[in-house]
Amino acid sequence: MERQDKDLAWMLQFNNIAWYEDGKVRILDRRIYPIEINFVTCHDHRQVAEAIRDMVTQSAGPYVAAAMGMALAAYECRGRAEAEQIEYLTEAAYTISHARPTTSKRMVLITQSCLDAAREGLASGMGDVSGLLRDHAVEQNNTRYERLGRAGKFLADLFPQHGAVMTQCFAETIVGMMLREARRQGKDVRFFCPETRPYFQGSRLTASVIYDMGFDVTVITDNMPAFVMKNEGIDLFTSAADVICGDGHVVNKVGTYQIAIAAKYHGIPYYVSGAPDHGHETVDTVRIEMRDPSFVLQAMGTPTANQNVRGYYPAFDITPPELVAGVVTDQGVFSPYELSKYKQSPDGLIV
Amino acid sequence: MERQDKDLAWMLQFNNIAWYEDGKVRILDRRIYPIEINFVTCHDHRQVAEAIRDMVTQSAGPYVAAAMGMALAAYECRGRAEAEQIEYLTEAAYTISHARPTTSKRMVLITQSCLDAAREGLASGMGDVSGLLRDHAVEQNNTRYERLGRAGKFLADLFPQHGAVMTQCFAETIVGMMLREARRQGKDVRFFCPETRPYFQGSRLTASVIYDMGFDVTVITDNMPAFVMKNEGIDLFTSAADVICGDGHVVNKVGTYQIAIAAKYHGIPYYVSGAPDHGHETVDTVRIEMRDPSFVLQAMGTPTANQNVRGYYPAFDITPPELVAGVVTDQGVFSPYELSKYKQSPDGLIV
Repeated sequence: MERQDKDLAWMLQFNNIAWYEDGKVRILDRRIYPIEINFVTCHDHRQVAEAIRDMVTQSAGPYVAAAMGMALAAYECRGRAEAEQIEYLTEAAYTISHARPTTSKRMVLITQSCLDAAREGLASGMGDVSGLLRDHAVEQNNTRYERLGRAGKFLADLFPQHGAVMTQCFAETIVGMMLREARRQGKDVRFFCPETRPYFQGSRLTASVIYDMGFDVTVITDNMPAFVMKNEGIDLFTSAADVICGDGHVVNKVGTYQIAIAAKYHGIPYYVSGAPDHGHETVDTVRIEMRDPSFVLQAMGTPTANQNVRGYYPAFDITPPELVAGVVTDQGVFSPYELSKYKQSPDGLIV
Repeated sequence: MERQDKDLAWMLQFNNIAWYEDGKVRILDRRIYPIEINFVTCHDHRQVAEAIRDMVTQSAGPYVAAAMGMALAAYECRGRAEAEQIEYLTEAAYTISHARPTTSKRMVLITQSCLDAAREGLASGMGDVSGLLRDHAVEQNNTRYERLGRAGKFLADLFPQHGAVMTQCFAETIVGMMLREARRQGKDVRFFCPETRPYFQGSRLTASVIYDMGFDVTVITDNMPAFVMKNEGIDLFTSAADVICGDGHVVNKVGTYQIAIAAKYHGIPYYVSGAPDHGHETVDTVRIEMRDPSFVLQAMGTPTANQNVRGYYPAFDITPPELVAGVVTDQGVFSPYELSKYKQSPDGLIV
């Protein structure tokens, strides 16, 4: 990709996330991207759920994949009686939305919205709503983009000119929106990206997007954020979130909590982008997903430890509101203690 | 290695570090250990300095390698006139001790001690002091072991029964001594080892030693220490140090500072083992070694990022005394603010 095609870069990112066509969903395999560009092809909606569980795609990817998976489920039951199709799609919505526990509440909203669209199409006499659901997935994404564009602007407004920003993990849309807005504002900002073990989303994905958008980007290992804060003049730490609870607790990729602690110690504000989640009024309803512990005993497929020792792999961690300077939403920047002021939309489409 | 041979484990670790024999120094390549067991063979003392610079060995390894390298240098100039040999060995001492900047003050003490032994041997009429210097290297190490044994006991005394301890990076001797003492005290302690990117010393080395010594050990990635402190009841964080300054600043493998900040936030004490360094009365004389930045853009040899982005690789970081609960030495535990009470031995042999 040419670096000049800056505005295209983030849109291409999306086009590769997940796409329904001709009875298949193709998902870009972000576990190896950008070292290799491979797609996982799903022939039924259960395979889509598996791909989500196996982290073929991350960040906003699972939401797009979920909606495209619903289009595939519609293809699978096309031509059956209306009630039968609705039953099939309801089951598919459950399977897909519960592929990973921590984000299932958002996933339920997204698949529910697909289900509503399907009901409407079937009621109007359509026998095959797969095309309708693909269009619905694209519409959902446009809505998400439009809201995240606003959040990206509020976020870029916080960057000082010639500033240095630390990121965590990958949020392709918000990063793309934030960078596009920063460029529009003529802001010359440097980025530091922790690599985000064990999947290297930071080094592989975030850093690539920032580079493609034409900004200066430096990859560091996950033990360096405090050193960089101390020695490289970081102005701001920012991440997206998998869940933002109503009480201001932020659930995001493991490591966010630790960087937020280091940021607090150095007097650097941490801004999280997204919106408070339906269904998580407090942190008490959050369940942290523990993944296969052996995965931390390798790196890019090569063993890193005596295979007799234990591994330990929490996918996410929880950052308390005292470490959060602000929640950057499509409606502006909120204190983590005042999230009840955010006007909820019922669709959950800001990630 | 049988896990029953617990007392042998740490001794074998040492025996593999570096060894002079028949005009060669063989150094265990810890960059790949324990995945592969390979030795780097050095045919002259400059190759020993290169091996130290290239991180073939770490922790106390470079100190042993340096002394064995002096034995090799003595072999190289054997049979020459006394003054010529002393000149040759003085140059060799400089080359070896300055292979890496951050620890050069300790290295100078060690090679100086070898030089003194060589002078004495040559003055007594020996034409080849290589054997004498190998014996001197072994003696230095015995002294180090004896002192670290005492420090290891003071450290193990701090572990609660059924406690959980977090480590950072690799210090084979102190870890071995600490574990041996913990076992002697009948303490059933669990260990959590951050992997220590980019070289994985924590996952490859520390975890292996702890496993071989028969303790429960869990490897985590470098973004997980705060999560583990919050959720797994860590009682104590401990590391060795590359430099302990007279003013209580601790220079150790990058990541130590960040874990110490997280420990402070969770009310967990951080104990560093070692002794205050000659020549670093304050932190102002410390120079942090910046290594090849491209090394953080790979893991175990596989690229992890778009090769156009920047890397950044400080080998060490500096933890200020406010984050240090105590300095565990062979003379007991000192406050980082009262290191002047430590009685210095002139040889620098506690690491």
